[in-house]
Amino acid sequence: MTVHIDPKSSSLTWKRVRRYVPILDWGRSYDRTAFGNDMVAAIIVTIMLIPQSLAYALLAGLPPEAGLYASIVPIILYAIFGTSRALAVGPVAVVSLMTAAAIGNVAETGTMGYAVAALTLAALSGAILLAMGVFRLGFLANFLSHPVIAGFITASGILIAASQLKHILGVDAGGHNLWEIVSSLIAHVPETNMTTLAIGVLATGFLFWVRKGLKPALRAIGVGPRMADVITKAGPVAAVIATTLVVWGLGLADGGVKIVGDVPQSLPPLTMPDFSVSLISDLLVPAILISVIGFVKSISVAQTLAAKRRQRINPDQELIGLGAANLGAAFTGGYPVTGGFARSVVNFDAGAQTPAAGAFTAIGLAIAAIALTPLVYFLPKATLAATIIVAVLSLVDFSILKTSWRYSKADFVAVSATVLLTLGFGVEVGVTSGVILSIGLFLYRTSRPHIAEVGLVPSTQHFRNIKRHKVITDPSVLTIRIDESLYFANARFLEDYVLDRVVGETELRHVILMCSAINEIDLSALKSLEAINHRLDEMGIALHLSEVKGPVMDRLKCAHFLDDLTGKVFLSQYDAMTELLKVPAVSLSVEDAPDTAETKAS
Amino acid sequence: MTVHIDPKSSSLTWKRVRRYVPILDWGRSYDRTAFGNDMVAAIIVTIMLIPQSLAYALLAGLPPEAGLYASIVPIILYAIFGTSRALAVGPVAVVSLMTAAAIGNVAETGTMGYAVAALTLAALSGAILLAMGVFRLGFLANFLSHPVIAGFITASGILIAASQLKHILGVDAGGHNLWEIVSSLIAHVPETNMTTLAIGVLATGFLFWVRKGLKPALRAIGVGPRMADVITKAGPVAAVIATTLVVWGLGLADGGVKIVGDVPQSLPPLTMPDFSVSLISDLLVPAILISVIGFVKSISVAQTLAAKRRQRINPDQELIGLGAANLGAAFTGGYPVTGGFARSVVNFDAGAQTPAAGAFTAIGLAIAAIALTPLVYFLPKATLAATIIVAVLSLVDFSILKTSWRYSKADFVAVSATVLLTLGFGVEVGVTSGVILSIGLFLYRTSRPHIAEVGLVPSTQHFRNIKRHKVITDPSVLTIRIDESLYFANARFLEDYVLDRVVGETELRHVILMCSAINEIDLSALKSLEAINHRLDEMGIALHLSEVKGPVMDRLKCAHFLDDLTGKVFLSQYDAMTELLKVPAVSLSVEDAPDTAETKAS
Repeated sequence: MTVHIDPKSSSLTWKRVRRYVPILDWGRSYDRTAFGNDMVAAIIVTIMLIPQSLAYALLAGLPPEAGLYASIVPIILYAIFGTSRALAVGPVAVVSLMTAAAIGNVAETGTMGYAVAALTLAALSGAILLAMGVFRLGFLANFLSHPVIAGFITASGILIAASQLKHILGVDAGGHNLWEIVSSLIAHVPETNMTTLAIGVLATGFLFWVRKGLKPALRAIGVGPRMADVITKAGPVAAVIATTLVVWGLGLADGGVKIVGDVPQSLPPLTMPDFSVSLISDLLVPAILISVIGFVKSISVAQTLAAKRRQRINPDQELIGLGAANLGAAFTGGYPVTGGFARSVVNFDAGAQTPAAGAFTAIGLAIAAIALTPLVYFLPKATLAATIIVAVLSLVDFSILKTSWRYSKADFVAVSATVLLTLGFGVEVGVTSGVILSIGLFLYRTSRPHIAEVGLVPSTQHFRNIKRHKVITDPSVLTIRIDESLYFANARFLEDYVLDRVVGETELRHVILMCSAINEIDLSALKSLEAINHRLDEMGIALHLSEVKGPVMDRLKCAHFLDDLTGKVFLSQYDAMTELLKVPAVSLSVEDAPDTAETKAS
Repeated sequence: MTVHIDPKSSSLTWKRVRRYVPILDWGRSYDRTAFGNDMVAAIIVTIMLIPQSLAYALLAGLPPEAGLYASIVPIILYAIFGTSRALAVGPVAVVSLMTAAAIGNVAETGTMGYAVAALTLAALSGAILLAMGVFRLGFLANFLSHPVIAGFITASGILIAASQLKHILGVDAGGHNLWEIVSSLIAHVPETNMTTLAIGVLATGFLFWVRKGLKPALRAIGVGPRMADVITKAGPVAAVIATTLVVWGLGLADGGVKIVGDVPQSLPPLTMPDFSVSLISDLLVPAILISVIGFVKSISVAQTLAAKRRQRINPDQELIGLGAANLGAAFTGGYPVTGGFARSVVNFDAGAQTPAAGAFTAIGLAIAAIALTPLVYFLPKATLAATIIVAVLSLVDFSILKTSWRYSKADFVAVSATVLLTLGFGVEVGVTSGVILSIGLFLYRTSRPHIAEVGLVPSTQHFRNIKRHKVITDPSVLTIRIDESLYFANARFLEDYVLDRVVGETELRHVILMCSAINEIDLSALKSLEAINHRLDEMGIALHLSEVKGPVMDRLKCAHFLDDLTGKVFLSQYDAMTELLKVPAVSLSVEDAPDTAETKAS
């Protein structure tokens, strides 16, 4: 092999560079068609993103321009380093909520310290994501199980919607869990600004109608499906324009309706996060959670979209793409970002072909940041809250509770605990407890494995559970199939099972452990097997193994166990039975079992 | 069944009482022979325990009488509630060290608060052990894997020996990890009391010789094996008597040799632990660690001894026995106790037949506490330190490093990390990190399971890895055996594997997942299977399952997956191959494979 390395080495280096900078891959084949498609997609996404960016910044407790800034440079960096062709990176609801929860602990909303802490959080997330990508730690995200993610997203949706009600009422309320939010809201209800409430309720109602009723209505009057879709997506923009005009025209800001106000007309500024040790240690755990949650959400969107076009996503490279995007956000006045579901789907449906669509979106938003910001001066915050509420309620999906209840009680426990803990104690406690609980439940299950006694299915060479199938067994041979890898947590369980089972079995001469489901035997389990072998030997019973897998056998050969084993290791359970019962293979295979064997049925 | 419950109910109640109070079981058949055997064992153990109890109290940083008190009432309570017939409960080296580490954080050695905190620690341990017993949580101890225990015990032995060197030098030094202990010792070396050093070195040398050289020497001059054993065990008593006499006779205490001094002549006093919330919260985690470590050590001793007499131990009842013993220690001036290895083996070898031997030992120690305590006034602490050092160095066993290195690198990592962290950061950090690391390594392994492509072993119905065996395969069928349960941590790994594997396989029509090693499919994995099914369908490939285990099949029937599955579920892999290849079973079974199949070898 080494002989051939020289001529290939330059192309290998190039391949490695391309692995880390995917733009070099798709950029070479970029043409006019792709450009056209990308441009159309970019315009649609830009229009959708302007109100969304402002709204999510509000949710994160940051000035509205932070949302715009977080959408510009990060999109461009993702276009260079990311692998998904349709993923749109920027502020998203859940990460904005987590940002608010994390920074709320270290700074007061509206202060300079708060905005700087958001930069630090983005920088930490970026560094963590990059490190995970470089060290190929993407698999860590797998420890967020489906029930935990589903429960967390649903609970976050409720928390986000509840947290926005203060803007609909026009009051100052706070809180990072459902109890705090609701009690703070109730305490402030008397201060409700009725004009704000009217705007908020109307905007929310309108957006709900746009979401549910507008598209069918448009289709009914003959609008094409594509056009109906675009009009529907423009709903929030319509609400923004209408309420801004109303507040401006009727001078409602003087009546106490809270408006967005001054937004600087500027490109994203160069900013410097605060890298003090105390701030980093306060924000490290939230940054890890934000990174992992953001990555999991982003990769699932990217994979869904890639599958539709038969493309594949490289998870480790995605980490690098998202890491670069977050570092970009940290140094250009943003806050943590990730791939958003709604915007990516819009991007995909609008025909985006390459990450260049994202770059064009960034240009659109940059123009908006310079030219359009004065226009949102009179935009009421209640309208932004309405867009958030309508958007996040689509995240709330309690059907996972029913699905998991029917499928597996352990998964149900994980879902419901995650939902309840997120609602009751906030996002960080919720997701952390969910992960720990999932792992705990998995360990508990594997520590008490399913153990079956098996017999021969007549006319086959196949062995199944004597409780579920009509099988042939023999009183001198006990075959035990352990349905789990053997490791420290269940080693003693097996020891107890075997020794309890053989007590009083006077005819028993052989115990066969059928190892078809044993994928690993660790040192603790080896000690238990040695103990079983030794104790059975004292009772005059031989211990045999059958169907030991290759990797497990390799491992066992490194220890003394096989030398001390009183019985043999058989390639197949069928070989074991025929040899131990000393009967010709054929007589075991027939429906009519030999005299020595008895037939049991469940 | 319910019809028959009435006549049995009184015996059931009795059985339940007997379950919790085993003395009712063995007490009824207690006779003169058993009494004689138990009495002889008790006398031998008592003589051995007097210096040991004083020494371990010294190790725990407590006054010497605490060691005696901790051996009296706890032994009696264990005799009532425990199930092992030979286990001797009392202060042991590792638990004494852990006690010193735990209390050292909340109180100053030698103060009243220190002794009271030891009572609280014993009470907490007792309550934890009792609760674990009542709620049958004994399985939690299984999460202390063999490598972690072995590493922890070895490192503790080193720490204990190092901590006793200060008594050999006759200086005041401290520290709870090897670095602290050694640097504190070095700093105090100039203050060494040479007389103390001479006594310590001579006592240590003498005890080492007794342990290694005395027995062969005695046998050589014709002493019987039993007698040689007893004389050897009495070695520490001889050292105690000799050094006490020397210190008394030469008046060495005036020369600065530290002696045990006044020990109250009293039965164990009634004491009250401090149950303040702040102390409990400080000691809760150490108490949990002490309980679990104590339980694991105790049960392994009890099981080893029980197996020699074909008896069985009930782990949940052992928890209750140890819990009662610790509560007893808490209220009678003791500190945390557990079953000790050395004393239990002596007890067993001396012929103890029932827990009554323990009760007689308690009486012996009570007599010692009343009558003999003035005699140890001049006993030098250096002698006690020497007995500890010689005893604990037998715990130090680095062979586990070699064994685990040869057997499994993951186990080696767990052992060496536990050893290094225990030495470097103390017992609590060491054992906690060891457990977390073991679990982490297990999760990591299961998150990247072994996946094998399998084919038919000629002339059998058995399927094995194509890389390891000469097997028959067919280009239209890909059979993948996943050697692990499918759960959230590895669900996506399988998805990636299957989809990457099928790319470019133009002849492929069927993918069979051979599920013989799959013991569980959780909701996250189900979502991955649904995705695999869907993606393969888009490529015109059918997904089949074979050899799905009963419990897994039951679970799958609760979901929509089987309705949507593009292929079938086969009872055996052999059925799957014969049906999918549409060949008569016999033609696959012969050595000469049919034209459609190719034979691969590793």
